[in-house]
Amino acid sequence: MRVGLFGLGKTGRSVARSIMNDDTCTLEWVMRKSAHVSRGSLADEIERSTTGRSRVFSSATTPIEDVLDRFPVDAIIDFSSAESVNYYGDAAARRGVRLVTAISHYPCAEQERLRSLSTETAVLWSPNITVGVNLLILAANLLQMISPHADVEIVEEHFRMKKGVSSTAKIIANSLGITECDVKSLRAGGIVGTHEVIFGFPAQTIRLRHESVSPEAFGEGALFAAHQMEFAAAGLYTMEDLLIPAFIENARKLQPRVLAVNS
Amino acid sequence: MRVGLFGLGKTGRSVARSIMNDDTCTLEWVMRKSAHVSRGSLADEIERSTTGRSRVFSSATTPIEDVLDRFPVDAIIDFSSAESVNYYGDAAARRGVRLVTAISHYPCAEQERLRSLSTETAVLWSPNITVGVNLLILAANLLQMISPHADVEIVEEHFRMKKGVSSTAKIIANSLGITECDVKSLRAGGIVGTHEVIFGFPAQTIRLRHESVSPEAFGEGALFAAHQMEFAAAGLYTMEDLLIPAFIENARKLQPRVLAVNS
Amino acid sequence: MRVGLFGLGKTGRSVARSIMNDDTCTLEWVMRKSAHVSRGSLADEIERSTTGRSRVFSSATTPIEDVLDRFPVDAIIDFSSAESVNYYGDAAARRGVRLVTAISHYPCAEQERLRSLSTETAVLWSPNITVGVNLLILAANLLQMISPHADVEIVEEHFRMKKGVSSTAKIIANSLGITECDVKSLRAGGIVGTHEVIFGFPAQTIRLRHESVSPEAFGEGALFAAHQMEFAAAGLYTMEDLLIPAFIENARKLQPRVLAVNS
Amino acid sequence: MRVGLFGLGKTGRSVARSIMNDDTCTLEWVMRKSAHVSRGSLADEIERSTTGRSRVFSSATTPIEDVLDRFPVDAIIDFSSAESVNYYGDAAARRGVRLVTAISHYPCAEQERLRSLSTETAVLWSPNITVGVNLLILAANLLQMISPHADVEIVEEHFRMKKGVSSTAKIIANSLGITECDVKSLRAGGIVGTHEVIFGFPAQTIRLRHESVSPEAFGEGALFAAHQMEFAAAGLYTMEDLLIPAFIENARKLQPRVLAVNS
Repeated sequence: MRVGLFGLGKTGRSVARSIMNDDTCTLEWVMRKSAHVSRGSLADEIERSTTGRSRVFSSATTPIEDVLDRFPVDAIIDFSSAESVNYYGDAAARRGVRLVTAISHYPCAEQERLRSLSTETAVLWSPNITVGVNLLILAANLLQMISPHADVEIVEEHFRMKKGVSSTAKIIANSLGITECDVKSLRAGGIVGTHEVIFGFPAQTIRLRHESVSPEAFGEGALFAAHQMEFAAAGLYTMEDLLIPAFIENARKLQPRVLAVNS
Repeated sequence: MRVGLFGLGKTGRSVARSIMNDDTCTLEWVMRKSAHVSRGSLADEIERSTTGRSRVFSSATTPIEDVLDRFPVDAIIDFSSAESVNYYGDAAARRGVRLVTAISHYPCAEQERLRSLSTETAVLWSPNITVGVNLLILAANLLQMISPHADVEIVEEHFRMKKGVSSTAKIIANSLGITECDVKSLRAGGIVGTHEVIFGFPAQTIRLRHESVSPEAFGEGALFAAHQMEFAAAGLYTMEDLLIPAFIENARKLQPRVLAVNS
Repeated sequence: MRVGLFGLGKTGRSVARSIMNDDTCTLEWVMRKSAHVSRGSLADEIERSTTGRSRVFSSATTPIEDVLDRFPVDAIIDFSSAESVNYYGDAAARRGVRLVTAISHYPCAEQERLRSLSTETAVLWSPNITVGVNLLILAANLLQMISPHADVEIVEEHFRMKKGVSSTAKIIANSLGITECDVKSLRAGGIVGTHEVIFGFPAQTIRLRHESVSPEAFGEGALFAAHQMEFAAAGLYTMEDLLIPAFIENARKLQPRVLAVNS
Repeated sequence: MRVGLFGLGKTGRSVARSIMNDDTCTLEWVMRKSAHVSRGSLADEIERSTTGRSRVFSSATTPIEDVLDRFPVDAIIDFSSAESVNYYGDAAARRGVRLVTAISHYPCAEQERLRSLSTETAVLWSPNITVGVNLLILAANLLQMISPHADVEIVEEHFRMKKGVSSTAKIIANSLGITECDVKSLRAGGIVGTHEVIFGFPAQTIRLRHESVSPEAFGEGALFAAHQMEFAAAGLYTMEDLLIPAFIENARKLQPRVLAVNS
């Protein structure tokens, strides 16, 4: 899979590293705002990377059409900012490039554009793009549906300076019908990020806990999404859209496996 | 639902309490080995319980046919020992009573009998009958199938005197393709029982943890099973057989819910 | 050690059981409000206990002087209610009986009485009398003093119906200079009780966690206190007063142990 | 405090960053084996750091005497390898420079040298130099001494490729009288490193847990040690030697604080 990446901020750099370390894809180019590449920086390193194929362009000086024609990609992964989609959206959709965007918040106009692009190509938009967090959300929702009488509590832990309830915790809370105010947020030192959902029964407790080790989880998630959408029809997808069919398919496979005791 | 209970050991007593506390069913009778009921004991208390309907019989002195005819039940819940099924199996199956047995180990002969009984009535056999543990097993198996490259570790914690790896941990391990020897068993003080499955990814960790608060979880699980099987066809069931269809059904319901972002 | 117990409520019964199970002491008598002992109850069981020494009296009908003279004790353990100390205080102090009281809240008058009694005998008053919780408080305070720049968070978990922040969490918070409002309280199912103090450093996290398994921890704590005070001078003590000297003494012992590397 | 650093491996680089970020000290120079500094590397960055004071030297080409004379330091922090102490030891000790070394294993000859150097200057040697882990060890030892009957279990978790029981877990185990074989080691994904000591009582459980967030904890610990030893006499120290007096001193301060209830 040939990938083009938007964004070379702290997260973007970590995503670039994940893509370069993945055997199943190549990082064709990176698009950043600034045209300036300082020597010794990651941008510089990507430029001179041994694959001889990665390049860093600036959206301020390079027309996207040129880039897509000279260095075609199968997927664009976007960790830049909300307005980038205006720059690459049409050109990419017209070429059937699938889009994976991890932008937290889109203004209404850009949300509208995503919807419009999704009539032409497969578009995935997920504010938290790690596989683990989305598996957690899914498993938590299933447990709640099967055990509607269980009490549910959500705890999230992050580094001291993080303001407000984490976006991920809000998404978890909303999906479980819990108000954001009831999320318990702990702030301490340099904790990268943990989310725990607790199900309380009269005589037992179940805990689902996700711990972030490093921001590379974002790159892993974006690549997972780009791979999963390889044969997807045009449409607007979430991580859950990709994971739920896998849950159902595997639960069906699981059935004969556990029934083995009977035969 | 009218329930007959086999076994008044430590777990059996706790199950009796759960049934008596549940509004949706009645404890019609308890069957125990010994005929002797000491004053002030739980057996005594059940005998004199305010429902005026519970009775304690001894399998040593009372024919099961008499009990089933005079005090008919919809389900038998068995927390006694492996041989009891020889005593009640045929009489119960002939009357269409569904059977829920939580016996850990059955010799081959009794396993054969369970299979034979399951051609006439619905039989559930599960060595660990708590809902929570079985949800854990199911969720862990699904995660593993979706993330086959994740490392998996299993830790179980129990009170100091518990010998060997817990049966539940063995079941979890086998279902995940892990050898029992790789389970990490901690023994400390009076811990009732916890089981944790850890999924390690390069940049994130997911933990599924089940903590037993009290043995009443067994009663809750047995009643859940007895209720779920109300309209079940004859056959031999595990807890997973009851839970997997609920997983699939709910995952399907979940689909439009998470797709709401698209509409 | 001969012990007299006040209170036969849910916690009191559990404490009674702990004392009866402890080889180093005998339960001489239990004092309760009501004079009525119902057959088959724990009171009945204590009355008929095989030691042939335990008795249940009612404070409504029995003068404490009589009890203390006929059945002398070394320590009184009080899990009843705030006013009991008015009933037994003077008679006990005059006889040099040491007092261990686990009453959560005393009105001013009874607090004053405790202070006055403590001029005659050793009195321990601790709203949370488990050894574990007090070790947690102590260790947390020491960590905070050594690492004053660490962020500190407190989380407590209890069963669904528990109202408000737990008293223990309030004590932990106050001792660490954290306002009670900042304690995160989770309520779920039947969790007996956990308290966790989290120390966040830029590059590491330390968690001190206490989990209650059963209310018998109260009995264990009360007996620990009664034993520790065996040679204590008259005075008003807290659990910390008993534990801190043990900390200091052991830290001193620890010094040559860790220094062994040097010799 | 002026610091000289030995070692620019993965951990060494992280330590260099910690020192440069700390307002209370300056990184005077770094000593590494190789004389070659590649452009854009951290060594390069340190060379050109804005303080204008950091320099990178190679022990292969630069006499240590020259470095110490031209760029004097108060402390040497050593994250390189066992033989380095032969290179810098005498010259540093003669100048009263205090030594902090985090080398895991020293051959007998180098251990002997450390002891000999410690007659001239203060030398700290600790295979795990994070403050948090050493606080954990200390607190765990105190808990065990106060509660000798508690069951103790040790669990450590690390990234998948880590071989054998972690050195830190071995140290914890040895200090608690537990054989290394009884440590439970989990290996999963990219877990940076956690160590948990569990104390099991009949009715309660205490858990002390240390989680590494990033290798910068090593730098923090080395600086803590270098600062603490500012006025230390010549001698061979461990992290515990620095922490135990702080424990005792603070426990003494704590005494009137908790006794406040009495006055």
